[in-house]
Amino acid sequence: MPADLPASGASISAGGKSSSLLARYLPITEWGRTYNRAVLANDLVAAVIVTIMLIPQSLAYALLAGLPPVVGLYASILPLVAYAIFGTSRTLAVGPVAVVSLMTASAAGAVAAQGSPEYLEAAITLAALSGIMLAILGFLRLGFLANLLSHPVISGFITASGLLIATSQLKHILGVDAGGDNWPDMLGSLAGSIGQANVATLAIGIPATLFLFWVRKGAKPALVAVGLKPRTAELIVKAGPVAAVALTILAVLLFDLGAKGVNLVGAIPSGLPPFAVPSTDLALIEKLWVPALLISIIGFVESVSVAQTLAAKRRQRIAPDQELIGLGASNIASALSGGYPVTGGFARSVVNFDAGAETPAAGAYTAVGIGLASLFLTPLLFSLPIATLAATIIVAVLSLVDLKTPGQLWRYSKADFAAHIATIGITLMAGVEMGVISGVGVGLMLYLWRASRPHAAIVGRVPETEHFRNVDRHDVFTVPHVLSIRIDESLTYLNARWLEEYVLERVAERPALRHIILMCSAVNEIDASGLESLEAINHRLTDARVGMHLSEVKGPVMDRLKRTRFIDELNGRVFLSQNRAFAELAKDDGLGTAAPNDMARGMI
Amino acid sequence: MPADLPASGASISAGGKSSSLLARYLPITEWGRTYNRAVLANDLVAAVIVTIMLIPQSLAYALLAGLPPVVGLYASILPLVAYAIFGTSRTLAVGPVAVVSLMTASAAGAVAAQGSPEYLEAAITLAALSGIMLAILGFLRLGFLANLLSHPVISGFITASGLLIATSQLKHILGVDAGGDNWPDMLGSLAGSIGQANVATLAIGIPATLFLFWVRKGAKPALVAVGLKPRTAELIVKAGPVAAVALTILAVLLFDLGAKGVNLVGAIPSGLPPFAVPSTDLALIEKLWVPALLISIIGFVESVSVAQTLAAKRRQRIAPDQELIGLGASNIASALSGGYPVTGGFARSVVNFDAGAETPAAGAYTAVGIGLASLFLTPLLFSLPIATLAATIIVAVLSLVDLKTPGQLWRYSKADFAAHIATIGITLMAGVEMGVISGVGVGLMLYLWRASRPHAAIVGRVPETEHFRNVDRHDVFTVPHVLSIRIDESLTYLNARWLEEYVLERVAERPALRHIILMCSAVNEIDASGLESLEAINHRLTDARVGMHLSEVKGPVMDRLKRTRFIDELNGRVFLSQNRAFAELAKDDGLGTAAPNDMARGMI
Repeated sequence: MPADLPASGASISAGGKSSSLLARYLPITEWGRTYNRAVLANDLVAAVIVTIMLIPQSLAYALLAGLPPVVGLYASILPLVAYAIFGTSRTLAVGPVAVVSLMTASAAGAVAAQGSPEYLEAAITLAALSGIMLAILGFLRLGFLANLLSHPVISGFITASGLLIATSQLKHILGVDAGGDNWPDMLGSLAGSIGQANVATLAIGIPATLFLFWVRKGAKPALVAVGLKPRTAELIVKAGPVAAVALTILAVLLFDLGAKGVNLVGAIPSGLPPFAVPSTDLALIEKLWVPALLISIIGFVESVSVAQTLAAKRRQRIAPDQELIGLGASNIASALSGGYPVTGGFARSVVNFDAGAETPAAGAYTAVGIGLASLFLTPLLFSLPIATLAATIIVAVLSLVDLKTPGQLWRYSKADFAAHIATIGITLMAGVEMGVISGVGVGLMLYLWRASRPHAAIVGRVPETEHFRNVDRHDVFTVPHVLSIRIDESLTYLNARWLEEYVLERVAERPALRHIILMCSAVNEIDASGLESLEAINHRLTDARVGMHLSEVKGPVMDRLKRTRFIDELNGRVFLSQNRAFAELAKDDGLGTAAPNDMARGMI
Repeated sequence: MPADLPASGASISAGGKSSSLLARYLPITEWGRTYNRAVLANDLVAAVIVTIMLIPQSLAYALLAGLPPVVGLYASILPLVAYAIFGTSRTLAVGPVAVVSLMTASAAGAVAAQGSPEYLEAAITLAALSGIMLAILGFLRLGFLANLLSHPVISGFITASGLLIATSQLKHILGVDAGGDNWPDMLGSLAGSIGQANVATLAIGIPATLFLFWVRKGAKPALVAVGLKPRTAELIVKAGPVAAVALTILAVLLFDLGAKGVNLVGAIPSGLPPFAVPSTDLALIEKLWVPALLISIIGFVESVSVAQTLAAKRRQRIAPDQELIGLGASNIASALSGGYPVTGGFARSVVNFDAGAETPAAGAYTAVGIGLASLFLTPLLFSLPIATLAATIIVAVLSLVDLKTPGQLWRYSKADFAAHIATIGITLMAGVEMGVISGVGVGLMLYLWRASRPHAAIVGRVPETEHFRNVDRHDVFTVPHVLSIRIDESLTYLNARWLEEYVLERVAERPALRHIILMCSAVNEIDASGLESLEAINHRLTDARVGMHLSEVKGPVMDRLKRTRFIDELNGRVFLSQNRAFAELAKDDGLGTAAPNDMARGMI
């Protein structure tokens, strides 16, 4: 990125000469300087609202991760403080999120049984590993690795994850035991146990689910109808889950549902997070590093997209490489305080943004709020039905399922559609880890396949102009002894062999040919393999007594070509413009036409 | 590849509608039709010369592969016949080659001890696996996978292999026992055993090596000096190794060197290759499939480069995907006749070509020659010193070591230099398999890294022209309220995030901005991720009240964009030419300049 940018937000994201190391690695030193009472007020309001929303969500996602609910609270305290210090987004809210919780459950479940101390240790270790990996990627500025996940792969993965998560929670609504971390297993085990469904649990779970759906869809209009401001209504709606929690706790107490077989959260050890040490058992780490890496990348991609969207709305910017460090710090903090992997969540960040948060300090205040909750509120949650938490998860994640994308992709790009569907299918059938890996693999194979078959066109001059266009698409002027080929791709090792074949085939087809012009207007780079192909083509065309010429070579490309033998050995010439090249070479046969493009001279 | 090509060679390589399945999969049916006595004569002459050269080479490479010398002969019979039937190159000569022999030794050595029947079985199984893999890749038309090996990686790998091979043969020149499949192990084990060097063996090995070096460098001029035609001299020189073999056998017999501790080839079972069955032991296959895949790809790349070079000299062409099938058939044939992995060799193919071979039939006749040799010549080879074979190998492979390339790469491209050096270093230090894998890995990472940071330029109009050039490189005309950005890369998922950041940064820097023109002359493709970024940019620019316009969008790209919401939601316009776009948008501020490019109308 360029370094010539305005001071404030820019210097954070420029990450270049203009910004001090301190400003780059400790963004808090940037916004902290200008912190004042007005900002404080706004941050505090936002913090209160986010805290109220975060309590049930944290408990629910911990449940989804197969962990004691309180771990969700632990994961929502120190990580927020760490991000406030190291993060570059002003409004991102970190903590437990649905997809990462699901991935944690799948990874920890592979090494230990849910509920066992080993399972909790695995989750904590995942947070530590993921935190270290993210920080390393950040210091090495390897944020670009996240690009390996294309939009179609990410959206496919998110959709499939939403379906898996919703399915995984049905057992809590039914009040039965069931397992599995892919669809076949989950559905099989549900089908097997549906007979033991608990009526009292259903009586809590189904109304709770319907209520939360209504809150999400119908509540806001209703509140506006009774005269509330849309934005106020919006924020009240976000408190819907809290209402569901309160109401179902009440129901449990009134009808003593605990005795009727409804699973309750039960005793939550109140108090601040304990200090925890991640496992240093190499055997365990060897089993967990791959899932930890996948959790890191998925978490980073989700978080950075949210952060970028929100930053753009206020003309602010984020620094992706520093975001890696911020999220790394959050996960290390999570591990050290007995939490599990966290990242920037969409829903809570939007709430934080809408509630008027102005700096990451809002996150720190939220942490204080959650801390107070885990100190004093936990006794109240004793009678909270698990089914209520499951309902909040189901309603939350079904909004992740996106049914429009496949159709759009099918119409726009079959290759992207294939990657999207493959990711959905494999994630549902083989679980989240295989889903991500094969999504990246399929995307990369399709990319490399396309990159090895680039587009090139034989072009001719549009009459009366200096434009050269594809002979197959336009009515253009050509001469039999000059062939103009426009190469529509950088020449890299992926397509070097293709170029040789393509050019030599064209030559083989045209006995009358005396000159070939390679029009390089779309060639942005020529790597060593591409250069070798050009040299080979030049030698073979020389044998075949055909002249090889280049036109419209870009400045940076030409600078490098000038340092090579190729330019000296080239049997033809390098022209600034295709028009000039065609004019002069056509003349070589008495067919002189358009005038050479003079003012262009010396611009190569 | 296009299907509109001349009949003969073309239809083979077109592999499209124009060529019958028979012609595509059985090239022999193409050239066989026109076979006549004149061609027969030429093929026979070539076959005799290649046979003479191939006998010592086959024995030597078998030795390099750690196999009994006779296996080298077996690998030079049926595979040649199979290639003659399925291959598309008229002059490629297949059989054992140095690099693949080294890779075979390293792979088989990992599962069994040299000299054991299991070791031979592993080598045969490698040939079978590699044959099947090549054939499958061919039928699936996945030849492009070979592109993953860039020129710098291949040449680095070849150089390092040459050094490893030469080093591995020193023990035979010294007459000591030594092992290892990477430099540290090899040199360590040589240093430990150099004390037991056998004088008689040195007395054979050193002169043989010097003689073969002289044959390669000084013999041809000498022969020409005594009045031979250069081409004849060239061919006689190729028989140098045969002379070395004859002379050293003589020396052994005269001075009874066998008794003086010189290792001899000893009894070679004479007769035609036995029928062999590759192992079907899954445990073994699981250990061998990765090396088999690497052998397949390296072998294919070496073979196809040789075939393409020779084909071009005679204006012929080859069909890479069918080449995979041809080499696959050769390796399956090799496995079934007790041989080991084979591929098209450079030296022998050039000899075959220079000797005037016209069709693959020459290969079949060579097979007959080797067959006769293994029937009747093997007794003569009893007294052949191993040192002589080692000398032929050393002299042959040192020509693989290329010391010029690193410097050229350093000057041209640091990234390619890095991939080259990394491949050499890792191959020497960790062996051939790690070398290939990490070469591909490093190349791919560097490619993806570059692809995720594409080149873009802010452009302005060159005075008095319709040319738009980089404002940093040229003295051009711009206006403060219009920003023209030329995107020098296809918009794919690898750089989608970059595009958003880049454009929004430029906007953040320019308060006065009213219009952005994205000049797409170098955008050859926009995948779904790139499209999403354009949509996001459009939304954010709309919020910022900046118009977003596109210019010089390529036909194929525009066709797909027309099918999307993006074009309808675009807050600006799509212009055929950058000149027209700039002219109209600059006017938007009363700064009207160049006339709109009329004749260009309706050409999008």
